[in-house]
Amino acid sequence: MKYLIYSLIVIFSCSIYSQDLNIHSQFIKKIYDEALSRGESYERLDYLSNQIGGRLSGSVNYERSVKWGKEELNLIGLDSVWLQPLMIPKWIRGAPEYAHIESSPGNTISVPIVALGGSISTPSIGISANVIEVKSFDELNKIGKDSIDGKIIFFNRKMDPTLINTFQSYSGSVNQRIQGAAKASKLGAIGVIVRSMTTILDDYPHTGSMYYDELTLNERIPAAAISTNGAELLSSMLSLNPNIKFFFRQNSKNLPDVLSYNVIGQIDGSERADEIILVGGHLDSWDLGDGSHDDGAGIVQSMEVLRILKILNYKPKRTIRVVLFANKENGLRGGIKYAELAKKNNESHFFALESDAGGFTPRGFSFDTSESEFNSLKEFEILFKHYGIDNFVNGGSGPDIVPLKDDKIILAGLRPDSQRYFDYHHAASDTFDKINKRELELGAAAMTALVYLIDNYKL
Amino acid sequence: MKYLIYSLIVIFSCSIYSQDLNIHSQFIKKIYDEALSRGESYERLDYLSNQIGGRLSGSVNYERSVKWGKEELNLIGLDSVWLQPLMIPKWIRGAPEYAHIESSPGNTISVPIVALGGSISTPSIGISANVIEVKSFDELNKIGKDSIDGKIIFFNRKMDPTLINTFQSYSGSVNQRIQGAAKASKLGAIGVIVRSMTTILDDYPHTGSMYYDELTLNERIPAAAISTNGAELLSSMLSLNPNIKFFFRQNSKNLPDVLSYNVIGQIDGSERADEIILVGGHLDSWDLGDGSHDDGAGIVQSMEVLRILKILNYKPKRTIRVVLFANKENGLRGGIKYAELAKKNNESHFFALESDAGGFTPRGFSFDTSESEFNSLKEFEILFKHYGIDNFVNGGSGPDIVPLKDDKIILAGLRPDSQRYFDYHHAASDTFDKINKRELELGAAAMTALVYLIDNYKL
Repeated sequence: MKYLIYSLIVIFSCSIYSQDLNIHSQFIKKIYDEALSRGESYERLDYLSNQIGGRLSGSVNYERSVKWGKEELNLIGLDSVWLQPLMIPKWIRGAPEYAHIESSPGNTISVPIVALGGSISTPSIGISANVIEVKSFDELNKIGKDSIDGKIIFFNRKMDPTLINTFQSYSGSVNQRIQGAAKASKLGAIGVIVRSMTTILDDYPHTGSMYYDELTLNERIPAAAISTNGAELLSSMLSLNPNIKFFFRQNSKNLPDVLSYNVIGQIDGSERADEIILVGGHLDSWDLGDGSHDDGAGIVQSMEVLRILKILNYKPKRTIRVVLFANKENGLRGGIKYAELAKKNNESHFFALESDAGGFTPRGFSFDTSESEFNSLKEFEILFKHYGIDNFVNGGSGPDIVPLKDDKIILAGLRPDSQRYFDYHHAASDTFDKINKRELELGAAAMTALVYLIDNYKL
Repeated sequence: MKYLIYSLIVIFSCSIYSQDLNIHSQFIKKIYDEALSRGESYERLDYLSNQIGGRLSGSVNYERSVKWGKEELNLIGLDSVWLQPLMIPKWIRGAPEYAHIESSPGNTISVPIVALGGSISTPSIGISANVIEVKSFDELNKIGKDSIDGKIIFFNRKMDPTLINTFQSYSGSVNQRIQGAAKASKLGAIGVIVRSMTTILDDYPHTGSMYYDELTLNERIPAAAISTNGAELLSSMLSLNPNIKFFFRQNSKNLPDVLSYNVIGQIDGSERADEIILVGGHLDSWDLGDGSHDDGAGIVQSMEVLRILKILNYKPKRTIRVVLFANKENGLRGGIKYAELAKKNNESHFFALESDAGGFTPRGFSFDTSESEFNSLKEFEILFKHYGIDNFVNGGSGPDIVPLKDDKIILAGLRPDSQRYFDYHHAASDTFDKINKRELELGAAAMTALVYLIDNYKL
């Protein structure tokens, strides 16, 4: 430890932080020791995942998680805890979906599908039609209205496995899920099937949001995700016989918005109480799994930041606030409402950090700030190297805090190892048994350390 | 990519490698693309884990894995594949172990235990005795012979959760397992129970090797691992009542050595065929799980190195050899025999790389070489940064290649993320479902890239 501090002092010798470096390094060690020895994030997530479970916006479970979140923040002993009301969308999945491939009349093979979030129902008897497989919107447009009319469009572009960061692969394919139905409907399709957004081959369909954009109610067509194994089967059967039919039935529905809440708590700042440091994730999840990685992990890590600072008896200079955002998955209403009220109330946010990329081993932080600010923040990187974190990059933060963006706030996101995330993302397999206790705790510790450093930054 | 290469050229402008850097960077991209798009390591491990399973030295399953290994290497189309005979120990677990805590006569709670590898049996009716809990050999010695005589010693020092590298935590506690019985026997103990070497609390006991050192046959006492939940229970019951008894029964046995094999294959070098670059792992495993992480992952990754080089039509300058070592877990006989024969046959090993730390996201490589050589090798690090690997350290390689150490060979080890390894290590939970395909493939790609670079190093 002495050697570490010595090395750091040498490196920081020209830096604005050198005088405090020894203190910072020692305090960060205390943070990690607390997180790894007496951490509470894992136990909290166990409850959220296994006693509450999936918590889709507008569901009873989401309301239960709001109540739980508020109670847990009160237990941590914050200076204040409150609910921020807002209207959120209510989409329901309804009865379980069903789909099959019909290779010849009466000869069917069932395949796993789930309705995409926001999709309308099929007619109650389902729909059956010929299928056209495409890999891109360009290809769709080239095929054209005449051929597409009355058909089901099957979007089957894979996530690129050769990209090392799986979020990049996801970005490269997810427009099929989000916009596929809107694009296909305009060309006369009657339904859309989308390959699940994951690089692995298995039997879990992965849901996720989709939007009809400007389509009128009667132009909307049902959209579902098919498991990757199902997509491979459908594709190979189509290559043998383009005339096979696909049948699917789903019962999903958009209902009127309902009242719900962001859950907020804070430790008041002792010197600059009006400057807010925010840490958070989103409390809602999809309904298929229990949302342990997306984003139960981010929720309990964010709570843990404040718990650790409290238990270490740290008196923050600025106000440290935790926000459990509502409705990220199908609307982002929680983040939007939070930013709207922050502006209205003239709140000043100095920094906001989100954890919404899974509870895996933390590898770094991304920042969304000016180049000069980033270069200044990057000097903190050396303090994290001992803890396996050495990747500070400028670019990106988290979806719920983006609405806060202005020319003053520093936005940031925790960047865990991304290799496993899309195995579980939005699928029934996103469950608590996929969480590793140490990985989750390391993420919480890293976030706490960054929040601590930011609290001592630019005083 | 162009930008990447440009940056690299700038960085390498003073380096011996600058002229080849563009080529190296492009070839490494090909390696990763192959591993991540058309990799075979995951499928191979599926077979080894699920069709063969746990493969303890001397077992029928180990012999099956030898046969499988040889066939697979032949399928890859190497220049030569052969078996290297050696004698290996044969220890058998026998009938399932049983243990309970007796809080008062007839009032028992069963707890999960497994015999440690190499331990003798209890008498067939088991042993029952009072228990003394200790955390260290110092504490044991202080308690002394008079108090220990006739008792069972319970070694209960935890792995330190605050160390970030879990292998360091393991090193800090594993002497209890390896030497505990020998130390306790000398003080009159009749049996030893050791807390499982893992940081998580669960019901899996973790086995592992133990040695009696110079103890004669009749001085030996049986030793078992207890699950961490079991250890916590036993410890808390002892703190309430030091007079409780512990009963355990195991049926393990050491049998005479048997003939078995290291499995070896190679691609002959085109320019310096007499300089060998070795890549490997150990083919044996403990018997409780299927040995997917320890060390099935290392086996299939090592095979994949040669397959990728072959499929990319790479003609190595040096000879690239894969070795699937026998008997690492309870004897290291495979590594020792290999080194002995290498010396006897005047083989010249330029480099050896082992993967024996699990099939998790690769984070770096460790080297065991001179400081100047290491500094030279560290220049390769920049080529891996894009792939999430940025931790080249000097210190340590892999157990099976250590016997090759001399003043010429460069030894190295793959260093994956260590957070999950000891959750499964030597336990029934080390199974194929704990393997993530991409993580495994990234490790194989990193190893291939390093082997490729070393083949082009110091020509």
